[in-house]
Amino acid sequence: MIFGGSKAPCAELVVIGDEVISGLILDRNSQFLGERIHELGIEVSRITTVGDSSSVIEDCIKLALQRSDWVVLTGGLGATHDDITKAALLKVFECGLKNDSKVAEMLEEMFRVRGREVPASVKTQCEVPEKAEILYNEKGTAPGFKMHRGKCILFSLPGVPREMQYLFEKYVAPEMASNNNKVFLHRLIKTTGLSEASLWEKVGPIEALQEKATIASLPSHLGVRIRISVLAESKQEGESRLDDAQSFLTKRLSHYIFGTDEEVLEEKIGDLLREKSLTLATAESCTGGLIGHRLTQVSGSSDYYKEGFVVYSNEAKTNRLGVKPALIEEFGAVSEQVAQAMAQGVCQMTGADIGVSVTGIAGPSGGSDLKPVGLTYIAVHDRFGTYCREFVFTHDRVGNKERSAQAALNLVRLRLQGELKA
Amino acid sequence: MIFGGSKAPCAELVVIGDEVISGLILDRNSQFLGERIHELGIEVSRITTVGDSSSVIEDCIKLALQRSDWVVLTGGLGATHDDITKAALLKVFECGLKNDSKVAEMLEEMFRVRGREVPASVKTQCEVPEKAEILYNEKGTAPGFKMHRGKCILFSLPGVPREMQYLFEKYVAPEMASNNNKVFLHRLIKTTGLSEASLWEKVGPIEALQEKATIASLPSHLGVRIRISVLAESKQEGESRLDDAQSFLTKRLSHYIFGTDEEVLEEKIGDLLREKSLTLATAESCTGGLIGHRLTQVSGSSDYYKEGFVVYSNEAKTNRLGVKPALIEEFGAVSEQVAQAMAQGVCQMTGADIGVSVTGIAGPSGGSDLKPVGLTYIAVHDRFGTYCREFVFTHDRVGNKERSAQAALNLVRLRLQGELKA
Repeated sequence: MIFGGSKAPCAELVVIGDEVISGLILDRNSQFLGERIHELGIEVSRITTVGDSSSVIEDCIKLALQRSDWVVLTGGLGATHDDITKAALLKVFECGLKNDSKVAEMLEEMFRVRGREVPASVKTQCEVPEKAEILYNEKGTAPGFKMHRGKCILFSLPGVPREMQYLFEKYVAPEMASNNNKVFLHRLIKTTGLSEASLWEKVGPIEALQEKATIASLPSHLGVRIRISVLAESKQEGESRLDDAQSFLTKRLSHYIFGTDEEVLEEKIGDLLREKSLTLATAESCTGGLIGHRLTQVSGSSDYYKEGFVVYSNEAKTNRLGVKPALIEEFGAVSEQVAQAMAQGVCQMTGADIGVSVTGIAGPSGGSDLKPVGLTYIAVHDRFGTYCREFVFTHDRVGNKERSAQAALNLVRLRLQGELKA
Repeated sequence: MIFGGSKAPCAELVVIGDEVISGLILDRNSQFLGERIHELGIEVSRITTVGDSSSVIEDCIKLALQRSDWVVLTGGLGATHDDITKAALLKVFECGLKNDSKVAEMLEEMFRVRGREVPASVKTQCEVPEKAEILYNEKGTAPGFKMHRGKCILFSLPGVPREMQYLFEKYVAPEMASNNNKVFLHRLIKTTGLSEASLWEKVGPIEALQEKATIASLPSHLGVRIRISVLAESKQEGESRLDDAQSFLTKRLSHYIFGTDEEVLEEKIGDLLREKSLTLATAESCTGGLIGHRLTQVSGSSDYYKEGFVVYSNEAKTNRLGVKPALIEEFGAVSEQVAQAMAQGVCQMTGADIGVSVTGIAGPSGGSDLKPVGLTYIAVHDRFGTYCREFVFTHDRVGNKERSAQAALNLVRLRLQGELKA
């Protein structure tokens, strides 16, 4: 159950577009808006998704204006014949169009830079509803609109996520925040290495925690995120309650927590490596380069990530990392011994301070009774020795690769934090 | 504009859950259902997303039953206190609960296998609405329900995607298909290497195409997908119209098309390599392992993917691939010359038939006036020679890495298809 105070003002979203309703594209705008509006202390009571049909759109807008304090529309503001949100607004608000000279200037400037005239179809964007305040859009050609009916405020935003988010933060969020005296804050506590059930068993009774904050847990195959939410009188009070809740969880979950909010595991590893002036190298078999890819998603990772090997074949394990053929012969390529030799070898070959290796059977083929699909060995080597752990993942190929990469990065983090003994 | 015949029967979706409406999780169920129902020739007219509030849920269900031929609910069927869909159905359909012995047996069996008793909370799942037909769920503990009001048929499905999809295919799709005499078919044509605007310019006038089928284009930074849809009297007639439309596009776009429907670029490459009995090796700088990761998403890729190097540093480029330090010194690590030497080196070191290399500035730092962020060189080498192409990508770090990997895989495909001259 997630916090959603029934006394809070409420908002409705109306998502417009055939491409959404027919499943051609995934609607991510609703999640963005749901989360942001919720953060602003306003309850989202309903999201209605409709196609490009004027009567349905008008009907939805009218109902939303009656039921809610805030209405946010997305989509249907483009300059093609199936963009009919503006026409629906004219009907619902019973008004005509006016010409907005600032929109015209912005469009001319935008096309002048590209060395082109404003196309005739795009010029129609200067025509805006008489009763609307204009939300000027520096990120695209479609302006947004703000309109009123009684106490209800309606915002109409373009459907392109980048433009929608830009106009939301520029116009909508400040207005929503100023209309709400309470402050809604939340913090994500990110864990990995425990299933949801084991995690809450480890945490134990949470009544004391629930007095301070509302807790939601969101499991995925890469770890469990815990969301702490508070509705507070002030930012200071809210932050202090979040801190209390976080330290409650930290006491019980200690190193299973790797970060908060936007922090990702590969960034945490980068911080630790930089702090200790250490370098890292990777030796990947079944993950095929995913660990290197994740490490290099972080800007500046070249400071500590030395290099990586994708050693899919036995030959490559031997030629690149010096894994002895006899070892592969005796124990198999997917074994503790080979994982250890790979981690040791990658340090030796590259001079990196820490080496991490993965060898496993991602599936769907390649498994046996003794070595089932999902069996994976991950080793971490540094000058203090080599640590290796066995896993049996139970997902499909893609899921097993993701779990393996996550577990490998987590073992590197734990080693850097002194939590793994060789 | 996307095909959606107004004479077709119509369906409404109601998505239930606080975690969806507050943006804590992304709703992918609606996309799945929107697409599948659309494929079955039924127009989805509205999707309503609501939180765990009984009055709002009841209100939504009642309205949907009045307006639509089909109603599909997802979510709120779990065994915890915030799962209230069943209670809402009892109110709307004015009926009580009955005990379903088959659900009870299934639950006992499910927990017996795990060596456990059925927990008391889960036992409540045996209590089902008197007026409902039961959708037996082998994938989870919550059964689904089928209920009628007049001509409208309502299905209530669990929110867990795996269970929802399972019950949809088992119960809902066959029933929807049997109620609809027409056949709705679609095909995705997948392209890469052209922007949306250039693509349609290349295609030219499409009136002849539109007479046969409805066309939607969906651009992303990795390429443009074109969706062809037809509503036909028979599967045969529909497939033949799809074939005609596809050959219309193929004539105009030729090698920019890399596949249809579920086909992905890395699979296409695997097919081509296997066909020609060739092997591939990768030398990645800025992509950090992403190309190897994508190649190894395909089961059986070990047949043709020999190995990969993540050579982030100049040292690694020299030590691993034999790139001469003087070359890096003279032209810089991000240059045509170094890309070519990397692709040649990776073939030499590994004995692979084809080598692909990427060197670029992913950003946000590392750019200069002469070599801006996004500048990327991609080379493909085989026994006929070396081909290199320069790109300037304009996304953020993550986007630039993705574009680079996509362009590299596409160049390998084109080389294998004989479309690239060294």
